Amino acid sequence: MRIVDLIRKKRDGGELTREEIKFLVDGCTSGAVPDYQLSAWLMATLLRGMTRAEIAALTEAMLHSGEVLNLSALPGKKVDKHSTGGVGDKTSLVIAPAVAAAGLYVPMISGRGLGHTGGTLDKLESIPGFNVNLSLGEFRRVLAACGCALIGQTAEIAPADKKLYALRDVTGTVESPALICGSIMSKKLAEGIDVLVLDVKTGSGAFMKREEDAVHLAELMVETGVRMGKRVVALITDMDQPLGRYVGHALEVEECIYVMRGEVRNDLSELCIELSAWMFLLGDRVATIEEGKQLAAQMISSGKALAKFREIVGLQGGDPATIDDPRLLPKAQSTRDVASPGTGFIASIACEQIGVASCVLGGGREKKEDSIDPAVGIVLHKKRGDRVVSGEPLCTIHYNSDARLDEARRLIELAYRIEPEPPRRARPLVHGIIGGK
Amino acid sequence: MRIVDLIRKKRDGGELTREEIKFLVDGCTSGAVPDYQLSAWLMATLLRGMTRAEIAALTEAMLHSGEVLNLSALPGKKVDKHSTGGVGDKTSLVIAPAVAAAGLYVPMISGRGLGHTGGTLDKLESIPGFNVNLSLGEFRRVLAACGCALIGQTAEIAPADKKLYALRDVTGTVESPALICGSIMSKKLAEGIDVLVLDVKTGSGAFMKREEDAVHLAELMVETGVRMGKRVVALITDMDQPLGRYVGHALEVEECIYVMRGEVRNDLSELCIELSAWMFLLGDRVATIEEGKQLAAQMISSGKALAKFREIVGLQGGDPATIDDPRLLPKAQSTRDVASPGTGFIASIACEQIGVASCVLGGGREKKEDSIDPAVGIVLHKKRGDRVVSGEPLCTIHYNSDARLDEARRLIELAYRIEPEPPRRARPLVHGIIGGK
Repeated sequence: MRIVDLIRKKRDGGELTREEIKFLVDGCTSGAVPDYQLSAWLMATLLRGMTRAEIAALTEAMLHSGEVLNLSALPGKKVDKHSTGGVGDKTSLVIAPAVAAAGLYVPMISGRGLGHTGGTLDKLESIPGFNVNLSLGEFRRVLAACGCALIGQTAEIAPADKKLYALRDVTGTVESPALICGSIMSKKLAEGIDVLVLDVKTGSGAFMKREEDAVHLAELMVETGVRMGKRVVALITDMDQPLGRYVGHALEVEECIYVMRGEVRNDLSELCIELSAWMFLLGDRVATIEEGKQLAAQMISSGKALAKFREIVGLQGGDPATIDDPRLLPKAQSTRDVASPGTGFIASIACEQIGVASCVLGGGREKKEDSIDPAVGIVLHKKRGDRVVSGEPLCTIHYNSDARLDEARRLIELAYRIEPEPPRRARPLVHGIIGGK
Repeated sequence: MRIVDLIRKKRDGGELTREEIKFLVDGCTSGAVPDYQLSAWLMATLLRGMTRAEIAALTEAMLHSGEVLNLSALPGKKVDKHSTGGVGDKTSLVIAPAVAAAGLYVPMISGRGLGHTGGTLDKLESIPGFNVNLSLGEFRRVLAACGCALIGQTAEIAPADKKLYALRDVTGTVESPALICGSIMSKKLAEGIDVLVLDVKTGSGAFMKREEDAVHLAELMVETGVRMGKRVVALITDMDQPLGRYVGHALEVEECIYVMRGEVRNDLSELCIELSAWMFLLGDRVATIEEGKQLAAQMISSGKALAKFREIVGLQGGDPATIDDPRLLPKAQSTRDVASPGTGFIASIACEQIGVASCVLGGGREKKEDSIDPAVGIVLHKKRGDRVVSGEPLCTIHYNSDARLDEARRLIELAYRIEPEPPRRARPLVHGIIGGK
């Protein structure tokens, strides 16, 4: 088998066999296949697509390029949730403790911020001392001790994906649904889970702006997971405005604490309950979605979710006092309100621009090696449909640099659209559900 | 400007600007752009195509990635010929001396064998002592001394093409007409020529098997050459069976000597006269193609072409005695006839298979670094339309290894198709002419 022949086959629209894909992925892992051949294959794959069988073979090969956790020694179902990413998308910080508090295991391997979106790992690291770089052994110990652990991808997990992902980032081959599916599913399946709930975002702040693209990706991921013997559901959820009101790392941790205290009830808390309910249902903890929602709400109202979060933070080296007093989280030096230029109703918020503004403030990376500022961000006071009076604050910017403030403010001002009438139709939070049988 | 954005633009079917293409090619030459980004761009380009303006920009950028010869100090027109490659395609060895003998300058930079096709440099190197690796200074000196010099691409000539070419070979991106055009034209224009005659092959032994693909490539190359201020013509010529009767390096030199002695008149000699005539016409040496053909025929019949070839061989370190006595060329240890399995007429010869058979005997390379056997090859006794009697030899194999003989013989036996009736229509030698104004 010659790599160049496999590249040519895909280039000409052919279907690679399971063995051919394994050969490619194994060569990627071992380093036998040079990057320039991998990137030509990635581009051919992006432009020609992959069949369902090819995607399954890719996922399987990437999954087995590294260690696959065997958590069968732990009694009970192992469940996880994955989001395709958005702005203010912080549900993992609520869901993981809430679901673990109800007795399921949540072995969650998360990612960092990408482009205009934030990442769970970056948010967790804004908690002083929190260590996301546990070894797999430590990961198991925390998981066994409290039912949940939150870490980053280790070198042992899907190393082929790690390499391909880095290449895709610099070769314009990120956007392939087939490659996205393989990348997500290989990492998630390596966690040794039984159940996976996928939160596939759509709208102006999502990677998949068009709903049909989100649905397509969701279908690929559900089918791939089911082929691998897992119970999988995908929720297509709204990312046409930031989720919740806080955007930024420490700010988002703060909002999650308010949600878990039961002090905040908004789209964020609603989505946390919805996704947790599916984890309970597919994890055989409840018999219906309604029952699942009740259980999730109960985990929050009883304070069990927050207590579990405090426990996780403690076990992973973080300062549990932060959970009781969010003022201990990193704070920006200055804040500045952005005033509404007119009176009326918020018709829309260009969501990606809010994410970019947060990055501009120092909350994002241009290169992988860049460090981020955990304290900066934006707190929205007005969201879609809200009434606003001229001069009233639309949001508050938390910043550490005057130069960056101006650029972020310009982006935010352009992001808000104000109309005299309220928007005619509300966008639903959940657009659709795929799989879940 | 970021390379990944240019890759994405092309991936999405966009047109790159002249500046963007220059940025990419300059980054290729300097090494600033890593191979994995180049190969992703190459694949996107192959699958999305390039506009005529992009091809011109690519050619120009690759041309100026290295040295462009200025031959204006030499009195008279500088003309060259380029073939897209085939089996038994040895016209350069006759044309270059014939045209130089008539007073034009032929600064010819050639290539090596590629896949199933032979290369001019490999053929020349079968002449004992012949040095194709002249520096550009030596190249100029030989050219000034005798009107012709035959060398390989030096490090100074189109280095961007050299790098991209090597990458294309291993990333399945050879077959893009746009990239082929840029590669050929940048190297040829770097020779400092006024006139270029392109021999674009079509048929079972050509890279462009289908005539429409050959015509498309020819149009791209002619337009690109004209945009760069050159006089260019492309002849679409037949490569559905080997050209002439000899296939193999030393064997092809031998056949060329017979042609230049006036001893052999066949499709090879006819094509040499045709292509030379176009070089004379566009080089303002004659007023009509007919006149050009007469002049070319005269250069051969007078012995001037052969004398010029002897002179070139001498100036480039080769043994001129070889030209007078082809028995001094490398010879294979053994020969074996392939007998006709039936009686009838040769309906067709799968031309690529003959080329592959010659490679199998040792005349080709699998990897760039491989050495070749100059002595092996095949001499055809029967070509399309010829009558053959069962048991009569179709061809003679010249070989140095019994193991390789068997595989080559099997390929050759499968390549010949014999029918009871002669083929109804003869394929013309020249299928069409593009440009040449």
